[in-house]
Amino acid sequence: MSVIDRLTDEFARLPGIGRKTASRLTYHLLKAPPGDAERLARAILAVSERVRPCQRCGNLTEQSPCAICASPRRDVSIICVVEEASDIGAIERTGQYRGLYHVLGGHLSPLDGIGPSELNIAPLIQRLNGEEPIREVVLATNPSVEGEATALYLHKLIVPAGVRVTRIARGLPVGGDLEYADGVTIAEALHGRREL
Amino acid sequence: MSVIDRLTDEFARLPGIGRKTASRLTYHLLKAPPGDAERLARAILAVSERVRPCQRCGNLTEQSPCAICASPRRDVSIICVVEEASDIGAIERTGQYRGLYHVLGGHLSPLDGIGPSELNIAPLIQRLNGEEPIREVVLATNPSVEGEATALYLHKLIVPAGVRVTRIARGLPVGGDLEYADGVTIAEALHGRREL
Repeated sequence: MSVIDRLTDEFARLPGIGRKTASRLTYHLLKAPPGDAERLARAILAVSERVRPCQRCGNLTEQSPCAICASPRRDVSIICVVEEASDIGAIERTGQYRGLYHVLGGHLSPLDGIGPSELNIAPLIQRLNGEEPIREVVLATNPSVEGEATALYLHKLIVPAGVRVTRIARGLPVGGDLEYADGVTIAEALHGRREL
Repeated sequence: MSVIDRLTDEFARLPGIGRKTASRLTYHLLKAPPGDAERLARAILAVSERVRPCQRCGNLTEQSPCAICASPRRDVSIICVVEEASDIGAIERTGQYRGLYHVLGGHLSPLDGIGPSELNIAPLIQRLNGEEPIREVVLATNPSVEGEATALYLHKLIVPAGVRVTRIARGLPVGGDLEYADGVTIAEALHGRREL
């Protein structure tokens, strides 16, 4: 197999990239200025060699504890629980959250054989019962069926620890259109209405 | 900048890949089995280090002359002229062509400053006037305005060499629907009609 076919195969293994896109990417790198392909390859190697989960929160990072856990400027009394490390970036980009995080590594999914012991849940409970001065846990799992089930399960588990447990709000996305929103979202938006 | 952000940036530089897809690819590699990321990186390095244009036809290859030019089983009396090396793969996959190739490296595009001297045209004329026993040149540039203009230019240039010059057929794509075909394609299909 030629190196061109091999690279096309590797690109095609990535999610959302079919054979034609993979071929286009390969030929793009062949036509790109020298150094472009090598820079991409080095960036991939750097990530796979250097990035590890943070021992404390599960964030993917080059150092452990991660920059968020180690920062003296974060509010250590609040933990935001997310499904994946990539969700942290989405929340950080808003600039509206100054607390810590905890990454579950997925959501409960009995049909796929993913129960509580497959997720990073026991370490979360240890944190709540440990030396961290946590007063609130924000459950920011996805607003999907599995994400909701995971949030409900965690809620029951965390309440005995005596901390406040909150869930991120569901409702109409900003910039969205009521007319085109699905019924469940509109129902949630009505249910979660607030005083102006 | 973290290595995660750097890899996301590199992915986002590829054609057709935006910031969100780039981020998804990065986190995919972080979650993938160990070795997956390294295999992708090695495949990219192998391509950028080993692949060069064939000295004779311009095909991208690990050896020069390329496997097609060097093969004793190809019909050396016919050359198919294509815009890009990636077009060779598309034609080879049909299994219907046994001749040689010549890669132009693009098409004529005066507005972008691409004239005949920017393309791999002079070496094509040298091949026609050289020792190769060429009897036919198939112009397989794209059926776009620029591809047509390039084919017309080459036709005028090649005719004096005394070889047959043909152009790939335009018409309705197989499996297509007359009702939804554009007018120019239908006109070309009528114009190029053949006896059954």
